[in-house]
Amino acid sequence: MAEKNLSRAARKIAPFKVMQISDQARDLEVQGRKVVHFEIGEPDFPTAMPIITRAKKVLDQQLTKYTAGNGIFELRERITERYSRIGVNVDPKRIIITNGASGGLLLLLGGLMNPGDKLMSTDPGYPGNKAFASTVGAFLKLITLSISNDFQPQLADFQQNWEDAVKGILLASPMNPTGTVVARENLDELSKLSVKKNGFLIVDEIYQGITHKELSYDSALQINEEIYSLNSFSKYFGMTGWRLGWIIVPASTADHFIKLAQHLFISPNTISQYAAIEALSDSCSEILESRVKIYAERLKVLTQGLEEQGFVIPVKPDGGFYLFVDISHTGLDSEEFCLRILREYGVAITPAFDFSERYRSDYVRMSCATDLDSIYLGLERIKLALKSWGV
Amino acid sequence: MAEKNLSRAARKIAPFKVMQISDQARDLEVQGRKVVHFEIGEPDFPTAMPIITRAKKVLDQQLTKYTAGNGIFELRERITERYSRIGVNVDPKRIIITNGASGGLLLLLGGLMNPGDKLMSTDPGYPGNKAFASTVGAFLKLITLSISNDFQPQLADFQQNWEDAVKGILLASPMNPTGTVVARENLDELSKLSVKKNGFLIVDEIYQGITHKELSYDSALQINEEIYSLNSFSKYFGMTGWRLGWIIVPASTADHFIKLAQHLFISPNTISQYAAIEALSDSCSEILESRVKIYAERLKVLTQGLEEQGFVIPVKPDGGFYLFVDISHTGLDSEEFCLRILREYGVAITPAFDFSERYRSDYVRMSCATDLDSIYLGLERIKLALKSWGV
Repeated sequence: MAEKNLSRAARKIAPFKVMQISDQARDLEVQGRKVVHFEIGEPDFPTAMPIITRAKKVLDQQLTKYTAGNGIFELRERITERYSRIGVNVDPKRIIITNGASGGLLLLLGGLMNPGDKLMSTDPGYPGNKAFASTVGAFLKLITLSISNDFQPQLADFQQNWEDAVKGILLASPMNPTGTVVARENLDELSKLSVKKNGFLIVDEIYQGITHKELSYDSALQINEEIYSLNSFSKYFGMTGWRLGWIIVPASTADHFIKLAQHLFISPNTISQYAAIEALSDSCSEILESRVKIYAERLKVLTQGLEEQGFVIPVKPDGGFYLFVDISHTGLDSEEFCLRILREYGVAITPAFDFSERYRSDYVRMSCATDLDSIYLGLERIKLALKSWGV
Repeated sequence: MAEKNLSRAARKIAPFKVMQISDQARDLEVQGRKVVHFEIGEPDFPTAMPIITRAKKVLDQQLTKYTAGNGIFELRERITERYSRIGVNVDPKRIIITNGASGGLLLLLGGLMNPGDKLMSTDPGYPGNKAFASTVGAFLKLITLSISNDFQPQLADFQQNWEDAVKGILLASPMNPTGTVVARENLDELSKLSVKKNGFLIVDEIYQGITHKELSYDSALQINEEIYSLNSFSKYFGMTGWRLGWIIVPASTADHFIKLAQHLFISPNTISQYAAIEALSDSCSEILESRVKIYAERLKVLTQGLEEQGFVIPVKPDGGFYLFVDISHTGLDSEEFCLRILREYGVAITPAFDFSERYRSDYVRMSCATDLDSIYLGLERIKLALKSWGV
């Protein structure tokens, strides 16, 4: 049988638990149940109309051929402009447009890691990271973040755990699932540690722009311009299905990454690239900024409603559209909690299993990529559930 | 400096020579020169209008969210139908829609190879293969194809060279750059060899549909349904910039590949997927079939014109839109030939360097993805060049 030929990477990948929840939610909906969706990691807003309009124009112009492997110059130039507004000087040559942040992360790990190398990252963290590391033959070494430190990564932990095989660090800010923005001083310390160790630092900034407090920096590139920054048009720009992202690499490595991108991807999606120029325009900015305010309002409502019911959200999100919620007072482990509340009350929530070894049993991730009415309905249903379960 | 962190994969990738030729051709055009393009590996036809129209409708419907990781069911179902017409039964579950054939090849090698493994392939062959193997920590072991065998891969060569580290074979049919369709008996023998060796066989069929003679099979899946087939909407369907392809995997491995695809790509481009449904419809079929005839006509004209000038095309292409041409009678090596004919006569041609160790000096790849007038103009210019060089 053909399974015998599967690689270790293919064998050891666990399915995302969120997919199991989504599938079951869909099944309930097919049966006619109204499901409240707190499980979804995708903005509920449609792609903004100016972007749609631009894409249609691009189709009329039949701009559907391959582009340069690192993306069209005009888009990279617009990204450069965007960084210049926060005082960061990024030559368009250092920007590589990718097939979503997924393509960007693959390109970064493919360009920076050899088989056997280790990459330090955080628990909790994005569950996809492991598959990217496995695919290039590398391993994740996860550093557990603690609630007492507000999920902030600590220099000492990374320093102590930096063994010979470690080649670099991958952080996310704002982080999925906790919404933590890495504090400037912590990021600065970890950047300096990487430099000292001759390693690299990748910062996943795909939730950049969706932030809910005054920050002391907007991009990791303000800390050190040799940081590898990973970004996306999916979240803030609301272009998930368009599969477009970008990475920024140090000038001295750009040629290598451009070559690798040409070989691995040929080029990013052409229509998406031209449309993304519009996403960076002033005409979109107002629409996108208003959405950030809506996420903030939803997070506030959901936080308050959950806390009234005895749920603990030990660290409030600085950014993104998720809450990382302690459900231990329900007496259920997170997977049981999520499966029961979905089946019995039609509320879809992601258990922390995908995101964390340490917090997997007691925590869930609740997404606010759903409208306020649904949030209120979800809160009511959760209240009924707890009551019927005798919590 | 940051270069020290680059992986071996990133360091050892050579830039595609064709890019150097393309860049220089563009420079000449900027200076106002008319360049004849024989170097391009992309159909010159625009994406067919029914596909464009469908994409615009999809945008109007705001279908821009993530899809299932393996692609939308309707598209996979249409692909299943397409195979059923050639008598191959492919469950849609075995089909994974990918970010171009590039995404498909990465998925296949990521799912089938561990670091240190070797993959047997052919010289000449697609130059990108090496980067995919390197990225997953694997190595290519290239088997030289000989002109005396019409570039047909031979069982004996693969059998003799199958060492322990070899985990499988990657063939292409029709092949780039030679246009060779692997003969049914050779493919059958190599498939049986893979089975006997407990290895896998991947067949890159991205030029499927663009063939110029009666074939004894249309897809490798007709030989053995456990073959991994790699395919693309770029060539026959003319959707390069849309970045869409598919792979077909054995049923027993499908779940693993679907998981890996979810982790590595989240999902393929949504707009492209819906538009591709149209590409598989009857409304497009006529347009696409007429293009195949046009490629055949161009290949004929170019072949004749070159042979009249003393060029040797030892093996005529069965498929694709390339000629693999022996230029040794010019007394120049292929790189010098290509650079001089571009600079002096404005004819862009790709030296075989990207595609072959064995044939690199004496061969070039000439693409017929350019109109007949340009082909005639190119032939005239080549004639002038040879004359002035005293060939």
